[in-house]
Amino acid sequence: MTGSVLEQEIYEQPSVVQRMLDKESENAQRIANAVRDKFSYVIIAARGTSDNAARYAQYILGAHNKLSVGLATPSLYTLYEKPPNLSQAMVIGISQSGKSPDIVAVLEEARRQKRPTVAITNEPKSPLAQTADHVLLLHADFEIAIAATKTYTASLGALALFSATLDGNKKLLSQLQNLPGFMDQTLQLSAEYLPRAERYRYTQQCAVIGRGFNYATAFEISLKVEELGRIVAEPYSSADFLHGPISMIHKGFPVIVIAPQGAVFGDVSALVDRLIELESELLLISDETKILESANLAMPLPSGVPEWLTPMVAVLPGQLFSMALAKAKGLDP
Amino acid sequence: MTGSVLEQEIYEQPSVVQRMLDKESENAQRIANAVRDKFSYVIIAARGTSDNAARYAQYILGAHNKLSVGLATPSLYTLYEKPPNLSQAMVIGISQSGKSPDIVAVLEEARRQKRPTVAITNEPKSPLAQTADHVLLLHADFEIAIAATKTYTASLGALALFSATLDGNKKLLSQLQNLPGFMDQTLQLSAEYLPRAERYRYTQQCAVIGRGFNYATAFEISLKVEELGRIVAEPYSSADFLHGPISMIHKGFPVIVIAPQGAVFGDVSALVDRLIELESELLLISDETKILESANLAMPLPSGVPEWLTPMVAVLPGQLFSMALAKAKGLDP
Repeated sequence: MTGSVLEQEIYEQPSVVQRMLDKESENAQRIANAVRDKFSYVIIAARGTSDNAARYAQYILGAHNKLSVGLATPSLYTLYEKPPNLSQAMVIGISQSGKSPDIVAVLEEARRQKRPTVAITNEPKSPLAQTADHVLLLHADFEIAIAATKTYTASLGALALFSATLDGNKKLLSQLQNLPGFMDQTLQLSAEYLPRAERYRYTQQCAVIGRGFNYATAFEISLKVEELGRIVAEPYSSADFLHGPISMIHKGFPVIVIAPQGAVFGDVSALVDRLIELESELLLISDETKILESANLAMPLPSGVPEWLTPMVAVLPGQLFSMALAKAKGLDP
Repeated sequence: MTGSVLEQEIYEQPSVVQRMLDKESENAQRIANAVRDKFSYVIIAARGTSDNAARYAQYILGAHNKLSVGLATPSLYTLYEKPPNLSQAMVIGISQSGKSPDIVAVLEEARRQKRPTVAITNEPKSPLAQTADHVLLLHADFEIAIAATKTYTASLGALALFSATLDGNKKLLSQLQNLPGFMDQTLQLSAEYLPRAERYRYTQQCAVIGRGFNYATAFEISLKVEELGRIVAEPYSSADFLHGPISMIHKGFPVIVIAPQGAVFGDVSALVDRLIELESELLLISDETKILESANLAMPLPSGVPEWLTPMVAVLPGQLFSMALAKAKGLDP
């Protein structure tokens, strides 16, 4: 696994995001000028890993642009042939390959209804890119590993760039320039805890919890743990977890919690206290020293990352942990 | 467990839905007249079981009313204090108790922005009911068991009633009148397979798959299996499952598939074929005789249920199975 394609792609992420920011900033400005004031809410069409990028977009476009964001239900456009009326909507399609027929179908319908459309993709010649009015490119080179890593963080970065540009917020745009450096630091911090992934060699299941901006991270880490580590992982918001699913927690049950400092930290750390009472096995991703001390496996984040950018750093320990788990199990990622 | 409160509440569902239809049909007409043409898309705020009702609403309001439906992200309204601009939206809050502060906060913000609001709740005097312009009541009496059953199907029924009434579609409204009878038949069909839930006494995990209208059912059955059976269950759309999560399937891995006849049956049954190749343990909920023959545990639905109403019948075997599993494990539901 050391030196594997997956590992290379994981470690490539800071430079991919840097390249995307360098090459797409002007284009993002042009798109923002073209679509501004032409819609009152946003629909995003995406699947799999890109669907998790869409979850991030719900929070970032809400918090920074005051936009309501809904996720499209592609089967209405395809299998049911009953597309909704999209009046007042801007439609964004996210697909690294740009080939997903479901996502292309949603964008085609939006064009038919003369709504503004944006594609976020790694493939400039893909059907998705050719269908959309505007294209934000990921510049992630070809992704060889089946498990998406660099196209995920590049998609989040592109959404962050688009949101900050649409808002015309220079402070946010300047914070965004520090993102590749923060990602790099996060990868370096992993050397300490990564060998301890062996402890989870015989784990069969786990829960993954995040909230707000990092609700998306919970979904994405769950997907990686399943794809790479081949264990059942279920994502939750801390708010939902307390109402029902917490009943399945027993001593030693592994729970991965994403708990960076910020507006949702209080809620998430209250849940951590509850999990400690239940003697669950705690795997924590955080930049808060005290909470990390309570973890069975502490996965530290660098300090000083603004909360809205934490999803692009907090997912990295999850990717690395999933890869290390696959290695411990003798699986080929 | 026989004679338990939970069992009573499960078997009460046909009469609860009948009562809701009898008592709310005129009110639904009044609400439909009041809100019609006053919005161009819908936002739904809900948590837990009610969030699964919201997923059903996405499909039904899309397919029958051509409406785009987004699910609210409550933490933007509460923890982040950054509520989106809701112009052009109608906002629906779903909460059986009507007490969830997150959901009430979303409706309060919608009122502040002078948008039309509808509450779907079992409690006419709750904060949610008092916040909304319009209220659709569930008439489910008090739900004693912690695991929600009758308030879930009543919420779906109320959404189905509202959608068909808003559309003014007499054919759909007439089909809806047959729903309590179909639910009753489904409960009766369970006597045959329910004792076989013992087979799953030592199951630690499972996946639950549905698509389209029954994407919601996959989420709701997962939640019941976890709450009652205390095993990790993860819901998927058949489209997403094929891209990634299928890699964790091995011989004997239990998968619950919701496969009623209709527009998505082809896609879902293609996935069933794939699961058979992988020798997974198949638990099927369907009204199609041939596919049921391939199941390790066949949970039949009555024939003739229109696809848009299948979520209210297909969830019933999932509730009963979860209860039987709890019984087999000696747990108190």
